[in-house]
Amino acid sequence: MYGRYTQDLGTFAKDEAARLRLQEGDTPRPRRPSELLEYTQGRCAPCRVCALQCQRFLISKVGEDWVFLILLGLVMALVSWAMDFAIATCLQAQKWMYGGLDTNVLLQYMAWVTYPTVLITFSAGFTQILAPQAVGSGIPEMKTILRGVVLKEYLTLKTFVAKVIGLTCALGSGMPLGKEGPFVHIASMCAALLSRFLSLFGGFYENEARNIEMLAAACAVGVGCCFAAPIGGVLFSIEVTSTFFAVRNYWRGFFAATFSAFIFRVLAVWNKDEETITALFKTRFRLDFPFDLQELPAFAVIGIASGFGGALFVYLNRKIVQFMRRQKTINRFLMKKRLLFPALVTLIISTLTFPPGFGQFMAGQLTQKDTLVTLFDNQTWAKQGLSDEFEYLGILEAWRHPRSNIFVTLVVFILMKFWMSALATTIPVPCGAFMPVFVIGAAFGRLVGESMAAWFPDGIHTDSNIYRIVPGGYAVVGAAALSGAVTHTVSTAVIVFELTGQISHILPVMIAVILANAVAQSLQPSLYDSIIRIKKLPYLPELGWGHHEKYNVRVEDIMVRDIRYVTLNCKYRDLQQVLHSTKMKNLPLVESAESMILLGSIERTQVGALLSNHLSPHRRLLTLRQKVLSEDGHRPSDSSIRFQISTETSSGTPARPALRKPLKPALKRVPRRCDQCPVEQSRYLTCPCAACTLPVPCPCPACMCCLHPCHSLPMPCLQPACTACCPQGCSNTPLLQEEMILGDKMTPAEILEWEEQQLDQLVDFSSAKIDPAPFQLVEHTSLHKTHTIFSLLGLDHAFVTSIGRLVGMVSLKELRKAIEGSLTGKGVKVRPPLASFRDSTASTTEADTTALRQLWDRHQHHHMPREAGPGGDDDDDTPK
Amino acid sequence: MYGRYTQDLGTFAKDEAARLRLQEGDTPRPRRPSELLEYTQGRCAPCRVCALQCQRFLISKVGEDWVFLILLGLVMALVSWAMDFAIATCLQAQKWMYGGLDTNVLLQYMAWVTYPTVLITFSAGFTQILAPQAVGSGIPEMKTILRGVVLKEYLTLKTFVAKVIGLTCALGSGMPLGKEGPFVHIASMCAALLSRFLSLFGGFYENEARNIEMLAAACAVGVGCCFAAPIGGVLFSIEVTSTFFAVRNYWRGFFAATFSAFIFRVLAVWNKDEETITALFKTRFRLDFPFDLQELPAFAVIGIASGFGGALFVYLNRKIVQFMRRQKTINRFLMKKRLLFPALVTLIISTLTFPPGFGQFMAGQLTQKDTLVTLFDNQTWAKQGLSDEFEYLGILEAWRHPRSNIFVTLVVFILMKFWMSALATTIPVPCGAFMPVFVIGAAFGRLVGESMAAWFPDGIHTDSNIYRIVPGGYAVVGAAALSGAVTHTVSTAVIVFELTGQISHILPVMIAVILANAVAQSLQPSLYDSIIRIKKLPYLPELGWGHHEKYNVRVEDIMVRDIRYVTLNCKYRDLQQVLHSTKMKNLPLVESAESMILLGSIERTQVGALLSNHLSPHRRLLTLRQKVLSEDGHRPSDSSIRFQISTETSSGTPARPALRKPLKPALKRVPRRCDQCPVEQSRYLTCPCAACTLPVPCPCPACMCCLHPCHSLPMPCLQPACTACCPQGCSNTPLLQEEMILGDKMTPAEILEWEEQQLDQLVDFSSAKIDPAPFQLVEHTSLHKTHTIFSLLGLDHAFVTSIGRLVGMVSLKELRKAIEGSLTGKGVKVRPPLASFRDSTASTTEADTTALRQLWDRHQHHHMPREAGPGGDDDDDTPK
Repeated sequence: MYGRYTQDLGTFAKDEAARLRLQEGDTPRPRRPSELLEYTQGRCAPCRVCALQCQRFLISKVGEDWVFLILLGLVMALVSWAMDFAIATCLQAQKWMYGGLDTNVLLQYMAWVTYPTVLITFSAGFTQILAPQAVGSGIPEMKTILRGVVLKEYLTLKTFVAKVIGLTCALGSGMPLGKEGPFVHIASMCAALLSRFLSLFGGFYENEARNIEMLAAACAVGVGCCFAAPIGGVLFSIEVTSTFFAVRNYWRGFFAATFSAFIFRVLAVWNKDEETITALFKTRFRLDFPFDLQELPAFAVIGIASGFGGALFVYLNRKIVQFMRRQKTINRFLMKKRLLFPALVTLIISTLTFPPGFGQFMAGQLTQKDTLVTLFDNQTWAKQGLSDEFEYLGILEAWRHPRSNIFVTLVVFILMKFWMSALATTIPVPCGAFMPVFVIGAAFGRLVGESMAAWFPDGIHTDSNIYRIVPGGYAVVGAAALSGAVTHTVSTAVIVFELTGQISHILPVMIAVILANAVAQSLQPSLYDSIIRIKKLPYLPELGWGHHEKYNVRVEDIMVRDIRYVTLNCKYRDLQQVLHSTKMKNLPLVESAESMILLGSIERTQVGALLSNHLSPHRRLLTLRQKVLSEDGHRPSDSSIRFQISTETSSGTPARPALRKPLKPALKRVPRRCDQCPVEQSRYLTCPCAACTLPVPCPCPACMCCLHPCHSLPMPCLQPACTACCPQGCSNTPLLQEEMILGDKMTPAEILEWEEQQLDQLVDFSSAKIDPAPFQLVEHTSLHKTHTIFSLLGLDHAFVTSIGRLVGMVSLKELRKAIEGSLTGKGVKVRPPLASFRDSTASTTEADTTALRQLWDRHQHHHMPREAGPGGDDDDDTPK
Repeated sequence: MYGRYTQDLGTFAKDEAARLRLQEGDTPRPRRPSELLEYTQGRCAPCRVCALQCQRFLISKVGEDWVFLILLGLVMALVSWAMDFAIATCLQAQKWMYGGLDTNVLLQYMAWVTYPTVLITFSAGFTQILAPQAVGSGIPEMKTILRGVVLKEYLTLKTFVAKVIGLTCALGSGMPLGKEGPFVHIASMCAALLSRFLSLFGGFYENEARNIEMLAAACAVGVGCCFAAPIGGVLFSIEVTSTFFAVRNYWRGFFAATFSAFIFRVLAVWNKDEETITALFKTRFRLDFPFDLQELPAFAVIGIASGFGGALFVYLNRKIVQFMRRQKTINRFLMKKRLLFPALVTLIISTLTFPPGFGQFMAGQLTQKDTLVTLFDNQTWAKQGLSDEFEYLGILEAWRHPRSNIFVTLVVFILMKFWMSALATTIPVPCGAFMPVFVIGAAFGRLVGESMAAWFPDGIHTDSNIYRIVPGGYAVVGAAALSGAVTHTVSTAVIVFELTGQISHILPVMIAVILANAVAQSLQPSLYDSIIRIKKLPYLPELGWGHHEKYNVRVEDIMVRDIRYVTLNCKYRDLQQVLHSTKMKNLPLVESAESMILLGSIERTQVGALLSNHLSPHRRLLTLRQKVLSEDGHRPSDSSIRFQISTETSSGTPARPALRKPLKPALKRVPRRCDQCPVEQSRYLTCPCAACTLPVPCPCPACMCCLHPCHSLPMPCLQPACTACCPQGCSNTPLLQEEMILGDKMTPAEILEWEEQQLDQLVDFSSAKIDPAPFQLVEHTSLHKTHTIFSLLGLDHAFVTSIGRLVGMVSLKELRKAIEGSLTGKGVKVRPPLASFRDSTASTTEADTTALRQLWDRHQHHHMPREAGPGGDDDDDTPK
């Protein structure tokens, strides 16, 4: 694990140092004379020299973090503002069309329905064609990327364009969709692109560790400039994307998010939308007595109900997706007519919200933003039996219905929006679910608040002053609670404060959010984790809290004991056997089968390359030529020839690239992805695609399930049934054919004989890349600790050792199984003999001691034969 | 590293499982019949049975996290409220005394000065006597503890009592001291004590990992209930105490802090202090136009000035402490009269704040709380040339002076309070610096705000409405900025919002805080880090941002190459030599000196124990007896006797405790601490005490600098000059003497001969505790990555390996040196040959390959002699 990354880092650092030296040493000297020559003839030469120096200074500063963060914040604020502007224009257009056609209801309906359908269909089609990776929220993918997995297609310019345009259209349609999730993704793409752009000026933008840090900051910027909520943005992005967070990245997020939110709001002021910088959904609740202590139970009820509602939303969303996927007829039909599903959903939803139709009972004519503004309104809507009956002014009008009650309207609104939002977020367009959920939560809170206001018309407080109940405050609480429940975050509370610009309801909001989280977390995963599971991205489930079993389960209970390994003194035949018998992506390298001392780990591809390299026709031809030469000439011994060849072919890394280069174009089309597997295989070699575990061989060449090594180096297949296993076939590699034609004059029998002979040779590992320090655990490490280490270091496997000896291996899969077993209450599948064994005290130290004694004995026998060891010890029954 | 902890965890888990089984299986059965018998005779037996079941259910729930968090929150809220009440009473008493004596200024002065002097002196004396660990803030110590270091005396009941009472007296004196830092400490102690208390009911309270998680939550509770700021509390505690934060602990903090803040404020409502739950320092700034865009430069100026001010404060504070320590005459005098310094400082400060004296120019009669309330006031104090000159009402009166200007008063206040606070926080009483700094920041902000108001009497905005400048808003910004600069945190912004109950100034506050942080972080460490360095606690400096060199430095440049190791087949003499030649606390265990394959690590104490055990008089006597017996009886061979003995003494862990137990009382007084070393040595064996590195032998027995092993096991000293080296002397251990008297009939010459003979035996490691998987790095790991891993996993050393072979070691010390070298701009001390070596490309892979080839060659030579390896290779010049 470490070896791999640090190698890259090391190489990078070296190159970088070399480049910097070059830059500092050489570049200024040749440039300055020519430029000075050019400028000294002008009139204001000193000015220009000064400007030049400034420019040079600026370029040298480009590498600094804060420049990057400011640029990122600026760009994202502009994008956010421009998108908001475009979306508002789109919505305005719909309203204008709808308003203009008020003479004919049918025409009105046509306009109301067609407009969003066209926009959504365009968005879906555009995204599908340009970059299918832009579909959906993006937060699940960002969580995966920040875990260290590379999903390369997700951070390209193409995806950026697709996401921005697709999202603008999708939101412009007025569907219940959000922009928060996509904005996290957009900001990350922006950061990645900016990195690449700035690397043109030099600097450290190729560094992987740094890029991950910047991505974390970008996530914060995304949320921050979407809601003009810098603090909430930072916290939300941490909660949603990270498991462990480096506090040193913390201020990066704050810095960029604050700058971004500032610019975002300043743009609104400059555009004369606002007089000064204020909150996005400003509320005006009274400050002196925001709420009564006796209202707290009502807030708690909102919290608990929101918890159940949030879990239900996640469940509903997942079920809709699964239904679509499982129903094969539907699935097949939808795959063919990809744009039909979005159009259909949009049609249904917009029909139901048609204001003169059913929409009149659910404030259908309001946009999401207007809905929120009205829900956070300071006045009480419910009739209070007093003379000063409330006047519905302006957009508030939409909530009034002459033949209906405000309570009925709210209930209908909540119920309809609930399934609509759950359905709409499954449409394959760039969209988030945060904002719709937020609106539903606000409506629910408002409902409770209006009920309370109707119940206690003069407030609960019985002292001198009359403090009426503020239903808007309940709406704020409800919004925070439901969105917190769906996303499993506490920071929605902070977002709510920043959105409304008031913090007076802090305690009710905190109480409701915490209760909602407690309920929702015990029922369902968060929406983002749910999507991660649906999309089969690699993940590590969270440890539940208060589940004490996890302290009792240890690595020895969950590890795989029967692992294949490569020994230092093995033959090529052993390599072949190991590759045939296991699917592990990383093979441990041990000293010898007896000692089992772990020396490092070697990637499966490397083993395959070693083997194919050794058996390559190229090498065979070389042998042949050598043989012919030696038969003609001075005839050295056979073994020395073999050795010479072996060193020649494997003399290493400098020679290989030249051999590999011409293959690249031919192989370029090979690393295509299988449909079900969203992971770009370039670096992350563990394929999370479910297809790989099926008995059917995987069509994806990067998965390496198929042993056939034609993807990396040209050689004939080792397996007879290879064409079935490898759909590409061996004839794809032109070099191979050329070689075969050129000099392969051996008969198949001879080839087989030669190969058998070669397989009996000892493996020369000197050309293989070996991870010299793979991560190691001990058998007694608890599940809790293992989980922490895996998520801290982003591991996907670890070897279990006992005093240097390899005893097993734990991968993400085992860990996942163990945790989900313990979380679903089924209990971890502890191996029965082990579990019973563990009860006897001091068994662990015994085992350790025995192992050590074995090693010690071995050494005594080997190196110190003069002193007799305790030969016939009584603890010989331990397995070796 | 892992081995050690996980071993504990494993053992714990086992014990726990056994106990739970016992509890579930046995406890209910014997209890129920007896209890039912007792109750069935009563009238309401069903009720009681029900109550009993409830009780049992409750007890079973005690182990849950949320019960613990609620209890913690409740207790801390009560403590906070009670302390606030007591402090308010104390301050009230002073005011009453001062007011009652207004006939005579001298008497008034006496009362004004004596009262705080007595309180502070009492506080200092009380703390000194009961628990000196309670002195100071406590945040630095908590940071160290959360890093995994055990400072045991810091979390005891005694310290808790000392801290609570000491803090109450210190704050009751009216000195410029804060309660935030101490509250973090108090909450942590509370959590530790609660853990211990709840473990009486069973549950998982002994688990170390869990306790650390709970301590993290407790820190949040401490801040949260101190300011009634749950969100800010969580964030502040994260920023101040952690380097990496587990998001799964996040909600724990939120939950406990919210509950605590809620109870804290509810208590105020119940006590009729407040009508309902509101913020602690509620502000009433206008919501519709909180500030103008054109005021932002002024806020930025506040931020930057606060950054410089914060750095100056930290510098001043450190210089005062260092001056006190360095001036030997002062130091010696103060050590003798420990209470003189606090009394003197209090006398000076209270004299200067005496209201009829100099205090009238700096609002000396206001308490800290009143000062803040007045500074956050909504009105403008500066004369505006208008008719409605401002009336100073109530406590605002204090700021007015007939012969002075409000600007002068504010400037005097800021300057005086600045050095007073820096001085007062060095007094050895429990006290924090957050609140004083906060007040100074507020005053500075107010000063800027009043200046702005005087400059622009009608506001800057030139449109229709006149929006006057709100100086109170500037005060809020200043408070957040200066406290953020001193503590290097961004979350003071959130604390400020929660304290004032208004979030309308979010952007100015964020901008100022970020600028202040940027300035302060580049000038000085945070106040807490500064204290950590002064107290010489173990720490890892933060990586600066934008320092690219850290990507270029690699482990191979900073690691120690010349390390001592223990081989598996070494003799006791080798152990002795290793112990003599190195001071390393953890020794690597390698397979053999030739292969250098790292098998594990062994603690220095374990090696010492092995050695002393082998040479113990006890064993010598046994040998003697055995010899006598064998001479009498059947006379086995000499070597078999020796072996028998060896297995008997070292048959392991079960036998040893019995041997060790009786020693405990006699040795109990031995683990005392040296004066300069605050770390309790029980687990953390690396002594951070500076004295250890001096040539003088350390008087602290736990440091193990002295080889003399009389502290762990009785045996005669190996060194001739031991009495000089070990001030305790060998005669301290009664068992030894007894043994000596009982059966030591060997002459010194015989003993020496016997020992020489024993030293030539092979070491039997079976009784030693070996960490089977110490953390390993590779040579190419970058400094950046190494820092991340060390702070993530809380390591204090790591071995550097290359394909299983030990090549070096990196400890916290090397890392610290490298980072601070690179941070201070002096450049890292890269070894010149290495640095030049690195420039040539592909050198690293070469080295790897060579190493591997060596291993391979060795194996080929050893196991496979039938195939000739490439014997005379050209890369033999690499060092072995």
